[in-house]
Amino acid sequence: MKILVVGANGTLGSAVRHELAAHHEVISAGRSNGDVTVDITSADSIRAMYQKIGKVDAVICAAGDAYFGPLLELTPENNEIAVQSKLKGQVNLVLLGLEHVNDRGSFTLTTGIIMDDPIIGGASSAMAGGAVRAFVQAAAIELPRGIRINNVSPNVLEESMDSYGPFFPGFVPVPAAKAAKAYRKSVEGAQTGQTYTVY
Amino acid sequence: MKILVVGANGTLGSAVRHELAAHHEVISAGRSNGDVTVDITSADSIRAMYQKIGKVDAVICAAGDAYFGPLLELTPENNEIAVQSKLKGQVNLVLLGLEHVNDRGSFTLTTGIIMDDPIIGGASSAMAGGAVRAFVQAAAIELPRGIRINNVSPNVLEESMDSYGPFFPGFVPVPAAKAAKAYRKSVEGAQTGQTYTVY
Repeated sequence: MKILVVGANGTLGSAVRHELAAHHEVISAGRSNGDVTVDITSADSIRAMYQKIGKVDAVICAAGDAYFGPLLELTPENNEIAVQSKLKGQVNLVLLGLEHVNDRGSFTLTTGIIMDDPIIGGASSAMAGGAVRAFVQAAAIELPRGIRINNVSPNVLEESMDSYGPFFPGFVPVPAAKAAKAYRKSVEGAQTGQTYTVY
Repeated sequence: MKILVVGANGTLGSAVRHELAAHHEVISAGRSNGDVTVDITSADSIRAMYQKIGKVDAVICAAGDAYFGPLLELTPENNEIAVQSKLKGQVNLVLLGLEHVNDRGSFTLTTGIIMDDPIIGGASSAMAGGAVRAFVQAAAIELPRGIRINNVSPNVLEESMDSYGPFFPGFVPVPAAKAAKAYRKSVEGAQTGQTYTVY
């Protein structure tokens, strides 16, 4: 299969590429490097990326920013980071990518454990995750041509504990390679509308 | 208690007002009429509303628009209706309202059954509902001064079957008065972070 991985150079995206590379042709997309560059906060940039790469069998998004910090410092303005990136960025990859995905292809988006198990400072990211999960479940029943859609909700990653660890006291981190398996399940399996939790 | 009901003139909001009016002072807010007017898609309008009404004990939102229509006709542009109104409108009522809510007060937002049980044409609204549910659960653990937050997720309302019925084949509608009870539970009870389903 020809698989587009958006956010391919991040901790999670790298593991997903590694998991898929042996059996598939992977096209990597990133903000500043990769086979193609894309800024998912811009619908025009997403459109340009799809124009450039042509048809694919699967689209994976392992990208999506959000503000992390105390709820009392969450404002309409910094909440917008998650709205534009983790939420609309991922949803727009689907809405604008549909015609570029082959019959029986798939989309796999990324949510995260804090939409189920909240942490201090994570309300904005949880919001975006909850939005993506519900969108995936609803979009699945309407996608044409046998196209499927799922999301993967990883726990905090072992590889990210230096930066994110302090936000996740008592959480048992998972290796990125384990989370990456769930993306492979989504791409090579036959389920749709699912949330694959890797907790 | 002094309770602000946003969307007070809608089908659901009217039932909520009726449920609460006997025991509380209700301030009604609506787009074009009510004790105070507000456009929840505008942060400035929300700020102006709170300035006008002063401190309250509870904020209820029974407002929130979304595009309903085939997924294949959902675009970044019409998806924006739900993002600006049902999603950010409700979240911003909390972020901008916090300082206007008294100690041990509460926020009660509105989601909807289709985030759990999707319908054709409802992906955008489901997305917004999922966002609000996850935000509520996460925000609950950080709210100061004993302030609580919940959301009510109603089934399609009996009173709305003329307009929304065709979208909900086989759903068993609930009376708005029954859904309104859940708002009272949220306001007068002591739970927080909850999703009260009225299915």
